[in-house]
Amino acid sequence: MKEKVDISYPLPMKIIGVGRYLPKRIIASSELEAKCDLPKGWCKRKQGINERRWIDDETVAFMASQAVYEAVMDAGISLKDIDLILNASNTYDRVIPDQSAQIQHELGLGNSGIPCISVNSGCLGSLVAMDMSASLLATGRYRNILIVSALVSSPGVSYDNPIVCTMLGDAAAAIIVTNTPDGESSGVHAVRMETYSKAADVSGFSGQTTHKSMFNKNIHSEDLVFEFNPQSMQSSGTKYNQNFISRLYPIDHNELTLVIPNQATRFAIDMMKLKFTPEKVKSVIDRFGNIGAVGYLMAIYEAIKDEQIERGDMILIHGMGAGFSILGMVLTY
Amino acid sequence: MKEKVDISYPLPMKIIGVGRYLPKRIIASSELEAKCDLPKGWCKRKQGINERRWIDDETVAFMASQAVYEAVMDAGISLKDIDLILNASNTYDRVIPDQSAQIQHELGLGNSGIPCISVNSGCLGSLVAMDMSASLLATGRYRNILIVSALVSSPGVSYDNPIVCTMLGDAAAAIIVTNTPDGESSGVHAVRMETYSKAADVSGFSGQTTHKSMFNKNIHSEDLVFEFNPQSMQSSGTKYNQNFISRLYPIDHNELTLVIPNQATRFAIDMMKLKFTPEKVKSVIDRFGNIGAVGYLMAIYEAIKDEQIERGDMILIHGMGAGFSILGMVLTY
Repeated sequence: MKEKVDISYPLPMKIIGVGRYLPKRIIASSELEAKCDLPKGWCKRKQGINERRWIDDETVAFMASQAVYEAVMDAGISLKDIDLILNASNTYDRVIPDQSAQIQHELGLGNSGIPCISVNSGCLGSLVAMDMSASLLATGRYRNILIVSALVSSPGVSYDNPIVCTMLGDAAAAIIVTNTPDGESSGVHAVRMETYSKAADVSGFSGQTTHKSMFNKNIHSEDLVFEFNPQSMQSSGTKYNQNFISRLYPIDHNELTLVIPNQATRFAIDMMKLKFTPEKVKSVIDRFGNIGAVGYLMAIYEAIKDEQIERGDMILIHGMGAGFSILGMVLTY
Repeated sequence: MKEKVDISYPLPMKIIGVGRYLPKRIIASSELEAKCDLPKGWCKRKQGINERRWIDDETVAFMASQAVYEAVMDAGISLKDIDLILNASNTYDRVIPDQSAQIQHELGLGNSGIPCISVNSGCLGSLVAMDMSASLLATGRYRNILIVSALVSSPGVSYDNPIVCTMLGDAAAAIIVTNTPDGESSGVHAVRMETYSKAADVSGFSGQTTHKSMFNKNIHSEDLVFEFNPQSMQSSGTKYNQNFISRLYPIDHNELTLVIPNQATRFAIDMMKLKFTPEKVKSVIDRFGNIGAVGYLMAIYEAIKDEQIERGDMILIHGMGAGFSILGMVLTY
């Protein structure tokens, strides 16, 4: 088999459908401030969060599947047209089999044969999935890739840890990407990722007892604590992001219609508002809190649904995540 | 940026270095048979396993890093030449930050910026990483990709569960892949992956208490049990593998120098020995047990080191994993 495939940058990738799922239960910041003994208005001031969603009893697979149904409808395709399920969730219902297969099962595709894979890189998972998809589409490995991410964080938070408790939310979002038809401009102009494990400012499930391995019959619930140091994360962000965007791509700010910054802290969003026209900077943290890798897909979802972007518009996505990792992507919608 | 990249199948991908790490402690099957109250010779007869390695106190990151050092030496490159760390381990030392970043840290690359990502798809993770790497190399996204997998399973096994206890082993392996230089034939002719979540014959960490989410302060150690149904896995394997290889690629058996089958059970290996010349079928399960995604990299390692393959030889890799997933790959070494 000697088959020729021509690839030219921008790598052709078109977002043809978006979907999301929001738990019904809205938790106002004022409610958590009272429960966590925080001053009134603290969440908004410190984190930029007015409210977040918490699940009742939804699972990762259920929320993901609901987002997928909307994305498939939006794309005007059927579930069977998907030829790769790329899961980029930060939490999972079970560890084995992989969460991607659990989502396939929830979608009623258990006998379909559609390949299921998860990619992980902290909150950057969804952007890594988009990055990888651009190459997988370019080589013809897949045609219609589903990228889906769901976060179920609320069962793990404790009022005794106000920072984590107030910061996280539950939600799901999905996008479907495909090869760009001839004559259209959708595509990825540049992607860059950098990881600095020296600055591991987020940790969790850290094996605090004597046994280190997660795969361990002697694991204790104290081993499963999510830890987060927002001060340290901010200083790592500031340090390692110096000149990151110029390493990524020579950007003319006027060419950009939208900037999607890190959706984890208000600080990162404020920093981007200093660099770019504030109206161009898209944030979802005010209504959903930190929803991990879901945040970037949620921002894309809203930008499309609210008509903040249209076909041919150029977007910059600039994410950060535990690792410590940074990922920047410039794409035409 | 309008840059032209030419891609032709086979996708150019060359394995330029391999490495592994084996814990010193060898656990003979006879020892476990005595402890688990199994008949003498049961492990060899049922599982094809003579012995396996168990860690003393090695971590996933440590074992992975040792395998990487050998692979880098073998490739004749330096650690800094790696531009992507793709982790495909089935177990991890901590959940956050991602294991890939923990490996970067262990390698002393914490300030390098080398991007770190994990891919998960049960025991197929290492093959999925190879599959994705072929596309990432083809589009020029990365040049030298490190694929590494380590398994620390022994701290989780219990003599009360003889099947799991005797089946699993600990080990690590790594390969480095790069774009094929002009005039050489190394490359990927075909890859196919299928997932059938209807046949989820392996499960673990399954949230057996009332709370379903893994991210949960009320998690109990009973939630973290690895379950495996070898009978059911065998029947799924038989069912879904019918004609899989003909869906993958029109293979002339004479063209193949080596076949690397599923490294999880003796049954899968025996099946392949019926289809192909038995001498061509490579197995590592006899000395290492089921080492998850490490198994495929270990088989590649040994095939190269033992000179069972040389440059230009064609290989078929045919793996299975929890999901239930099947992945087949035909490549020229």
